[in-house]
Amino acid sequence: MADKVLVYSRFPKSMMARFAERFELLDTGGKPAHEVFSARELGGIRALLTAGGSPLGADAMDLFPKLGAIVCYGTGYDGVDLKAAAARNIAVGHSPGANAASVADIAMTLMLATTRRILVADQYVRSGDWSASKQSPMMRPQAGMPDRRIGVYGMGQIGRKIAARCAAFESEVGYFSRSKYDLPYQYFPTLEALADWCSVLMIAVRAGAETQHVINADILRRLGADGYVVNISRGSVIDQKALIAALTERTIAGAGLDVFEKEPHAPDALTALPNVVFAPHIGGHTLESHVAMQNCVLANLSAFFEGKPLPYEVKSA
Amino acid sequence: MADKVLVYSRFPKSMMARFAERFELLDTGGKPAHEVFSARELGGIRALLTAGGSPLGADAMDLFPKLGAIVCYGTGYDGVDLKAAAARNIAVGHSPGANAASVADIAMTLMLATTRRILVADQYVRSGDWSASKQSPMMRPQAGMPDRRIGVYGMGQIGRKIAARCAAFESEVGYFSRSKYDLPYQYFPTLEALADWCSVLMIAVRAGAETQHVINADILRRLGADGYVVNISRGSVIDQKALIAALTERTIAGAGLDVFEKEPHAPDALTALPNVVFAPHIGGHTLESHVAMQNCVLANLSAFFEGKPLPYEVKSA
Repeated sequence: MADKVLVYSRFPKSMMARFAERFELLDTGGKPAHEVFSARELGGIRALLTAGGSPLGADAMDLFPKLGAIVCYGTGYDGVDLKAAAARNIAVGHSPGANAASVADIAMTLMLATTRRILVADQYVRSGDWSASKQSPMMRPQAGMPDRRIGVYGMGQIGRKIAARCAAFESEVGYFSRSKYDLPYQYFPTLEALADWCSVLMIAVRAGAETQHVINADILRRLGADGYVVNISRGSVIDQKALIAALTERTIAGAGLDVFEKEPHAPDALTALPNVVFAPHIGGHTLESHVAMQNCVLANLSAFFEGKPLPYEVKSA
Repeated sequence: MADKVLVYSRFPKSMMARFAERFELLDTGGKPAHEVFSARELGGIRALLTAGGSPLGADAMDLFPKLGAIVCYGTGYDGVDLKAAAARNIAVGHSPGANAASVADIAMTLMLATTRRILVADQYVRSGDWSASKQSPMMRPQAGMPDRRIGVYGMGQIGRKIAARCAAFESEVGYFSRSKYDLPYQYFPTLEALADWCSVLMIAVRAGAETQHVINADILRRLGADGYVVNISRGSVIDQKALIAALTERTIAGAGLDVFEKEPHAPDALTALPNVVFAPHIGGHTLESHVAMQNCVLANLSAFFEGKPLPYEVKSA
């Protein structure tokens, strides 16, 4: 009999296909598990598959008395209460780095699309305004990439890939992170100093309680009227209300956002703005990164059911 | 009295401001010069400022019996009949490389926007379809940049900058150009071979009679159903009818286009397509590249009126 895995978050079926070949999946479709399955069924569950951003605290863990492994699909695990898991002897796994290039690439896509105003450009051609030689103030030349100062917040695998890509665009790259690394980019000891220096702030920090709303009104003000913010990390890192205010009042020039405070919801006050490029949290969504993330999930689940340590385990802070 | 310069193409006034400080500009606004100025005024003209893509043949040159210099704003000079100019002892100048980074960056922007479907993504969020968890077949994961095969057609300054940027995205880079260079990219001896190999074809070749419609139905077919074409060179390089057919019938996956056969017109059959990202020939339009192009124009015009050779002269083939 195949080992049972409870699918705790809502995932497209196509993303589950490889797991279904190896395990018996109990799919909640993202609904509360106890509404979909009986207490007896939940009582036998030893492994959960979840999206790292889905809240998964002590109460939820206690629904599954035999739970031994929480496996996150993707790099993030910010929804999982690691202390609660450790206290219950539950191992937590994820897919480190598997989607780093894909996420870094969506960051670059959003930055370029925003700074070169590609949505406006595309609409200008499609609408016939270009043919009609209509003026378009939004199409005025903007600063380009050479010598642009790009600030990367967070220097993990994604931050490094963003930095390397920006350097190839002949931009200056600076960064702030808890540690200074041996990297050919200027290190700033505070987020404030980085924001003062850069014109594009790329948020690539690992999200968690300590990064909640660190991109606030003060940081946004420091970017200046020519400044942009690009977020591919988690919505929680930005004070979304402050961001909407800065974009509306044009105290910053624009934003590129793949993540939001309450996904899949982006407030109307945000989506009505012309100086933002949006994506529906597709940073990690390339064919290769899904294969790589699935490889990590399969390796974690297989090891767990064989009684071995998870090969891609999250180490509690 | 300031030296006179006839502005032959239609340019925004803001782009002419620095020239107006040094020269007396006779601005045609893009209309035929003889409709705007008297034969006596045209008879005194010694220097023309033009957009390199504007047709400027022997007949036009003969309207200006004293013409000694044609100065193109930008890198291109494909509209200028170089033989006719040489026969009349007219020097032709341009702005080599001044906008190379800016153009390479729009190529990258179009490639990323097209392959990651950023227009669809933005609309999916703005429309509320994401909030409503509506299915969107266009949002299915696509191939990403790592190990993607990018073919660069033309290895001048723009092609090299595109290649360097693509390499930073962990893509494989190949190229076809008349000459093989000492570069860390795979050389293909024919455009056909490059198209067979690559999944994204980046057109960065200098346009001219010999490149007219070289991207034809055969080349597009070789890119395959997962293939993309990005054009930031000139519209003339692509057989636009064949491109529309390939995009409509999905024998290629998509395109990113900054240039068109008859600018500023993009045919409805093209602009109706969802799998294309359009830009209104803004490749060179960044603040820095305008300054750099203007520096070349000023240097060319100043040298000419001082009786010196143009510092940025086009050498006849």
